[in-house]
Amino acid sequence: MARNCITLFTLFCLVSLFQIMPLQAQDEKNIQIPPELTEVWEPEARMVTPGTAAAPPSDAIVLFDGNNLEEWLSAQDDSPARWTINADGSMTVAPGAGDIKTRRLFGDVQLHLEFRTPTVITGDGQGRGNSGVFFQERYEVQVLDNYNNRTYSNGQAGSIYKQYIPLVNVCRPPGEWQTYDIIYTAPRFNKDGIRIQAGTLTVIQNGVLVQNHSEIKGTTEYIGWPQNLAHGPAALKLQDHGNLVSYRNIWIREL
Amino acid sequence: MARNCITLFTLFCLVSLFQIMPLQAQDEKNIQIPPELTEVWEPEARMVTPGTAAAPPSDAIVLFDGNNLEEWLSAQDDSPARWTINADGSMTVAPGAGDIKTRRLFGDVQLHLEFRTPTVITGDGQGRGNSGVFFQERYEVQVLDNYNNRTYSNGQAGSIYKQYIPLVNVCRPPGEWQTYDIIYTAPRFNKDGIRIQAGTLTVIQNGVLVQNHSEIKGTTEYIGWPQNLAHGPAALKLQDHGNLVSYRNIWIREL
Amino acid sequence: MARNCITLFTLFCLVSLFQIMPLQAQDEKNIQIPPELTEVWEPEARMVTPGTAAAPPSDAIVLFDGNNLEEWLSAQDDSPARWTINADGSMTVAPGAGDIKTRRLFGDVQLHLEFRTPTVITGDGQGRGNSGVFFQERYEVQVLDNYNNRTYSNGQAGSIYKQYIPLVNVCRPPGEWQTYDIIYTAPRFNKDGIRIQAGTLTVIQNGVLVQNHSEIKGTTEYIGWPQNLAHGPAALKLQDHGNLVSYRNIWIREL
Amino acid sequence: MARNCITLFTLFCLVSLFQIMPLQAQDEKNIQIPPELTEVWEPEARMVTPGTAAAPPSDAIVLFDGNNLEEWLSAQDDSPARWTINADGSMTVAPGAGDIKTRRLFGDVQLHLEFRTPTVITGDGQGRGNSGVFFQERYEVQVLDNYNNRTYSNGQAGSIYKQYIPLVNVCRPPGEWQTYDIIYTAPRFNKDGIRIQAGTLTVIQNGVLVQNHSEIKGTTEYIGWPQNLAHGPAALKLQDHGNLVSYRNIWIREL
Repeated sequence: MARNCITLFTLFCLVSLFQIMPLQAQDEKNIQIPPELTEVWEPEARMVTPGTAAAPPSDAIVLFDGNNLEEWLSAQDDSPARWTINADGSMTVAPGAGDIKTRRLFGDVQLHLEFRTPTVITGDGQGRGNSGVFFQERYEVQVLDNYNNRTYSNGQAGSIYKQYIPLVNVCRPPGEWQTYDIIYTAPRFNKDGIRIQAGTLTVIQNGVLVQNHSEIKGTTEYIGWPQNLAHGPAALKLQDHGNLVSYRNIWIREL
Repeated sequence: MARNCITLFTLFCLVSLFQIMPLQAQDEKNIQIPPELTEVWEPEARMVTPGTAAAPPSDAIVLFDGNNLEEWLSAQDDSPARWTINADGSMTVAPGAGDIKTRRLFGDVQLHLEFRTPTVITGDGQGRGNSGVFFQERYEVQVLDNYNNRTYSNGQAGSIYKQYIPLVNVCRPPGEWQTYDIIYTAPRFNKDGIRIQAGTLTVIQNGVLVQNHSEIKGTTEYIGWPQNLAHGPAALKLQDHGNLVSYRNIWIREL
Repeated sequence: MARNCITLFTLFCLVSLFQIMPLQAQDEKNIQIPPELTEVWEPEARMVTPGTAAAPPSDAIVLFDGNNLEEWLSAQDDSPARWTINADGSMTVAPGAGDIKTRRLFGDVQLHLEFRTPTVITGDGQGRGNSGVFFQERYEVQVLDNYNNRTYSNGQAGSIYKQYIPLVNVCRPPGEWQTYDIIYTAPRFNKDGIRIQAGTLTVIQNGVLVQNHSEIKGTTEYIGWPQNLAHGPAALKLQDHGNLVSYRNIWIREL
Repeated sequence: MARNCITLFTLFCLVSLFQIMPLQAQDEKNIQIPPELTEVWEPEARMVTPGTAAAPPSDAIVLFDGNNLEEWLSAQDDSPARWTINADGSMTVAPGAGDIKTRRLFGDVQLHLEFRTPTVITGDGQGRGNSGVFFQERYEVQVLDNYNNRTYSNGQAGSIYKQYIPLVNVCRPPGEWQTYDIIYTAPRFNKDGIRIQAGTLTVIQNGVLVQNHSEIKGTTEYIGWPQNLAHGPAALKLQDHGNLVSYRNIWIREL
């Protein structure tokens, strides 16, 4: 390739320069070595068109864009999802309809979504604007209205529910749209069924880091202890916790 | 605290319920244990007001908001920084003025900044829109115009320069503003001066993950090998690579 | 230094060689670059004399060599430790004397110790040969007789108690000496008191890996949930669980 | 299972106790919850018989026990390995015979081996007792005589060659047998061929930690830069570097 010819020519020049340079006491760092040595050309990163206000990144799978729930099933019985689609391009938990999950199964992903807790405040603690985002149907990033609403630290918005306190509480007021940008890597299990690598979650809420590569302790449990039984790819799940939490603009990228 | 009274009352009710329940063969998972057991109340995550289009998060240190370069020094001699401030609230590399660095020293941080490579394309490969963001004056996330401009994979925008290929190439065209949201943790050294924990970088470019908790191999070197000599907190540095790259809206949060 | 002269001479030779070589089409990998480029000479690893059957490594702190308990305190009240020293150079839990802990405080360490559960088997499950090794007074590697003695997987020998199942059950029969070689790194906390890096444990029992860099979930709790309140250096603790477990040959190296 | 009956009976007793206890102001930590809640019974760790002076652990694959080289091939051409088998149960590099590699391919492993550099000292720096252990044919833990023999820190015994300085220099004198106990986890690559998780190496030399979960930077390169092209399981390789280094007692466990 032409690249190599240029490289070699550069080398040749450098090398010639060497021989006419008086050799002086100097350490290895000053040796004039071609910088090409530490270039890596393969693999080439594939192109992705970044998202805009109107569109997600070009390699994202759009899970919800306001039009329909075709990507979603009822988590209980795999029937079509029955949450409410709103005129503004969002969807809202239909209390009693139960959790919904994606038809597709995922491993490591980057997820973007926006959520809104109800403007009319009812309840407190865990009872206010409660929902949740479950990775691989097991590991929950909490959705909750914690604007002037104290609950246990490992159960508030931005927490990995009952596992990790968020680094900060960066909730917007009820009724305002908030963002989650989440990087998830799945756990690994050996052939004996023992987990040999924890899954991880990095969570950015409203542009602020709330979880930094936290190693997931196991399944999210309301009562009791995380479990770590082996599993493969699984769905993304959104929780019906009986509150009128809304979602919009949900896309996911497989990593 | 009142919280504890409620907790105890809940417990009492549950416990009473237990005794009147017929005991049946069931496994541990079905035991009705109070969920309070796995709540963690301390520490309480401190409040941060999230940023908006007009303002960064409330706990961010604003490094550049378009008004002045008071937070910056010339990296060569600690004199006042001499890059160009533009009418649109951005600043531009003043070729020859050299790299600039923050007055403040940092360890682990979340950084946000926006950059723009020149609309008028000149040069190619590493010669087009080249600049860089150095954490702790040593570890570079590359800034480059790689929109239809191939260079070595570990040297393109989104790379940890000469160390990590970006997961994807998500560059916007020259002349458009692009974002970097970066999470950096600093390396650790033992008392013998040996690095015992790699620093890490997670980089989101234009909303798309390009580095996922990559373990930094050592100092960024154009020629040769990363070094790992012990160091403490240090400045954030922006590179003058001779191209008219612009920056704006730079803020940083200490983690 | 002489080293640099040799290096330069080598370079000079290589460079001369270059010029008389016909330049052919080849890629960067074939370029004859001096290997000195990727040598790192500083820091120099300090010398440690390895241990033998009779002595620990030269930089180890001997915590127990059979002679006395001078390095140990009663964990309850900081009075002198009151476990039994045996004629064979070991010590044995004196039930009722309570846990013992080191006078010294530690962070990251490599620990070696040998333990023996009683030859005369009494009890089963957790009741047989139970003791434990607590790092920083909080994080327990379980000691138990699990030779033909089933208990819960996350509570057997080689487990991080109630947190991590050992990769395998590699117990020797009761009455035989067993070894633990353990690498521990301490957790880190930020200024808000939130844990930002998990501690880790790598455990080799009787020469076989049972924990591989497992990220500690928090304090060891018999009942309930691990806690993660900030702390600094702390003692190593051995548990009195009422069984006549013996220890010998205990040394520790600060990492 | 009987276990559950006992568990339930225990629960019942505890619960009864609760009701007759006067409820006092206390925090959640004092609540008497059954400890069974945090027991995990599945999976059960499989049994392994630990090794002795005469035998490796029961689940180890013996790669060399002094009898023959049946597990080994010449790395160059896959012909039978041609190193020298000695009467004392060891084998020695046959200079010119080239590197040897295992017939079997491996991923994550625990490796034990013993090595001996020549009693008669010849050469210095990298020229004295040089060999090496390559995981997956790519990633080298250096074997070298560094007893009173300085070389570059990232190239001495216990180093990950040209990547990681050992934490200490714990070499025995030439002619003495030394041990390596090594825990290796393989790197992971995504479907684009980009490495998304570094391999790791923990190395214990002569009972002393010299590498603690070091993240491998890429392939070992004498000249130039580590590469990170995707690969699957691969052989273990021992290096012929022209010196009469001997090996014995080599076994490996798949993790």
